[in-house]
Amino acid sequence: KMTKTIIKLTVRDVRFPTSLEQHGSDAMHTDPDYSVAYVVIETDQGMQGYGLTFTVGRGTEIVVCAVEALSALVVGKSLEEIVSDFRGFYRLLTSDGQMRWIGPEKGVIQLATAAVLNAVWDLWARSEGKPLWKLLVEMDPRKLISCIDFRYITDALTEEEALGTSLDQMLKEGYPAYTTSCAWLGYSDQLLKQLCTDALNDGWTKFKVKVGADLKDDIRRCSLIRQMIGAHNTLMIDANQRWDVGEAITWVTRLAEYKPLWIEEPTSPDDILGHAAISKALAPLGIGVATGEQCHNRVMFKQFLQASALQFVQIDSCRLGSVNENLAVLLMAHKFKVPVCPHAGGVGLCELVQHLILFDYISVSASLDNRMCEFVDHLHQHFRSPVVIQNAHYMPPKDPGYSCEMLESSVQTHQYPQGQVWKKLQ
Amino acid sequence: KMTKTIIKLTVRDVRFPTSLEQHGSDAMHTDPDYSVAYVVIETDQGMQGYGLTFTVGRGTEIVVCAVEALSALVVGKSLEEIVSDFRGFYRLLTSDGQMRWIGPEKGVIQLATAAVLNAVWDLWARSEGKPLWKLLVEMDPRKLISCIDFRYITDALTEEEALGTSLDQMLKEGYPAYTTSCAWLGYSDQLLKQLCTDALNDGWTKFKVKVGADLKDDIRRCSLIRQMIGAHNTLMIDANQRWDVGEAITWVTRLAEYKPLWIEEPTSPDDILGHAAISKALAPLGIGVATGEQCHNRVMFKQFLQASALQFVQIDSCRLGSVNENLAVLLMAHKFKVPVCPHAGGVGLCELVQHLILFDYISVSASLDNRMCEFVDHLHQHFRSPVVIQNAHYMPPKDPGYSCEMLESSVQTHQYPQGQVWKKLQ
Repeated sequence: KMTKTIIKLTVRDVRFPTSLEQHGSDAMHTDPDYSVAYVVIETDQGMQGYGLTFTVGRGTEIVVCAVEALSALVVGKSLEEIVSDFRGFYRLLTSDGQMRWIGPEKGVIQLATAAVLNAVWDLWARSEGKPLWKLLVEMDPRKLISCIDFRYITDALTEEEALGTSLDQMLKEGYPAYTTSCAWLGYSDQLLKQLCTDALNDGWTKFKVKVGADLKDDIRRCSLIRQMIGAHNTLMIDANQRWDVGEAITWVTRLAEYKPLWIEEPTSPDDILGHAAISKALAPLGIGVATGEQCHNRVMFKQFLQASALQFVQIDSCRLGSVNENLAVLLMAHKFKVPVCPHAGGVGLCELVQHLILFDYISVSASLDNRMCEFVDHLHQHFRSPVVIQNAHYMPPKDPGYSCEMLESSVQTHQYPQGQVWKKLQ
Repeated sequence: KMTKTIIKLTVRDVRFPTSLEQHGSDAMHTDPDYSVAYVVIETDQGMQGYGLTFTVGRGTEIVVCAVEALSALVVGKSLEEIVSDFRGFYRLLTSDGQMRWIGPEKGVIQLATAAVLNAVWDLWARSEGKPLWKLLVEMDPRKLISCIDFRYITDALTEEEALGTSLDQMLKEGYPAYTTSCAWLGYSDQLLKQLCTDALNDGWTKFKVKVGADLKDDIRRCSLIRQMIGAHNTLMIDANQRWDVGEAITWVTRLAEYKPLWIEEPTSPDDILGHAAISKALAPLGIGVATGEQCHNRVMFKQFLQASALQFVQIDSCRLGSVNENLAVLLMAHKFKVPVCPHAGGVGLCELVQHLILFDYISVSASLDNRMCEFVDHLHQHFRSPVVIQNAHYMPPKDPGYSCEMLESSVQTHQYPQGQVWKKLQ
């Protein structure tokens, strides 16, 4: 019997003009318009799955083009067929004999893979009537492992080792979060102070500051924030790839007195050996290195772990090849005993990644030591099931699926370039 | 005075149905249709520059879309303006505050950057009336260095060190080539024997064989070719990323008796530490590791060199950010004393990369030890100034420019999907 055959895939270019207010600004991305390539798949029984990948404006149309190229590999397949050999389906998308050339497994084509597979995972979870994290937590470990493509990582983690990972069962009251909403690079000191005060009142204890454009400015801002939040709360700093290796070490050393827990993205996201050198130099200062939001696949994460090049793994739900590839990274991080602190923010990244970090906590790490998930308080109102934050914790989502579904009215208003919001701005 | 302002950029999707005859087939790319995103820029004075990047069929339309996204950064600029701060222009393209998110400097967006900048370099060389290699060789070293973006590589090579590189002046009679035309994976033994015999008669002494799909098959083919070419000629093997790290070591060890000079692309092109482990394991067998055709930027090459992860650097004229980024890699390879043996073949890769390797020989390495450039004898007839091979050597091109210009009739016949060739195949 033909059940749940995917008969249609649509993809839309949806952009929010966030650059108008300097939300999301950092040392390298000075004018981001938070955007998504938004995918909807539909089955012959009228069921829908929603997926997206995050972008920051121009170039979203290229990702849309890539999703369209992948859609031929999805449409016509049944959900059962896909999940009965999800590893095979993953490889079909990532190792197409012609399309892999323009990756492989990186950049535009990997972002498109993420958007498409996010929709497939959403459909799967919905068809089981569960939120995604619950689908994962309750899945037979062998089934779960069969979703992962182990190609190129068997020297760090074999399928057998992955199966041996303890899949403990426990559920607590939400997952600790930190906030990046207070200190974007483009914000004034006045605004920064106000946002800090508000956040402290709301129960936030962990704060991230953007740095890297100007050292004097960074010293002033870090000093200000440390003063605002006190010695007992946690401060992290984020350079968004601004520096070369030597420069990163010098610059961060100058900011050491403000006691940041980590420096995030000090240099090129591709520079494993560079991050290792920075980690080594900063360890005596008690500052760790965090990276991952632009780490493009499991092979890169493998090496970051092998080389002790990071002390915090920042997975991203939309950069890697969806849940499948994130599972591989979570399991490797566990083996190498490095905490996972997901990247979030943007559009929908919080909604999606909360499922992955809940799974990590319940079934893999069973620990909250040095673990927390980024939170940014923007654009959640455009989602059908927005994140719920209570006392600086992510509360486990209850609705079936992967929390990707956007309000149709939001999609239409923000579609680029024909949506109302963009027409007005032209 | 406004001279040579670029007023127009066009890009076309041009594909050759090479998969019909198994040209170019390997363990991972089983049905390549050699293709290009073909760029033409035009100045207000009617001068044209031609550029391309190479792809293998499906997905070319995504690269075309990316080129279109970049074109706004090029059109309206004058050639003088660009080359007076080429580093700045390079960074404008690769570090656009919004578009860098979908790379950065990798995959589709970097391929598009290559196509666009290849056209700019072609225009520059034409406007000086010189073939590109000559433009480079005769350029003031400071000017040359000012084309390179040193961001993220200063821990391996500083601008000052690069300037210290001896820019010797000497010109010989052509650059040694090796052939990959004889032993694609999809060829029969009969065809392979015939092609070997022909190549030996034409003076070829260095041969590359595709391996990695089936060990028994590889043993038979390597044995056959070694027998055909004799002990004195050179054999290289190429797995096109088929293996995991351990598998690569085991497999290549089984082929060691056929004395390959190198194993090319044994595993993921992103796996620096994996290549280092393979290099270490194979060194006692006298087999080097070669990689680079899918190495996506200078940061990755830097680490391959730092980690002794390769013994042959295979630059690609269309994967990296054009001449600018290739210059960075040539200079780093020189500093680390590793020979450069460019990747070529495809469509136009031989035409382009010959300029770079001539420059490397004349101005950087001044050596032919363990150096040679790949050659594949396909599709040259579609170019205005095709490569000239004499006695297995690339003869220095004489026409002005970067040898990117295709015959307009070839472009029109092969444009996808509306060209005659593709209409017939539908």
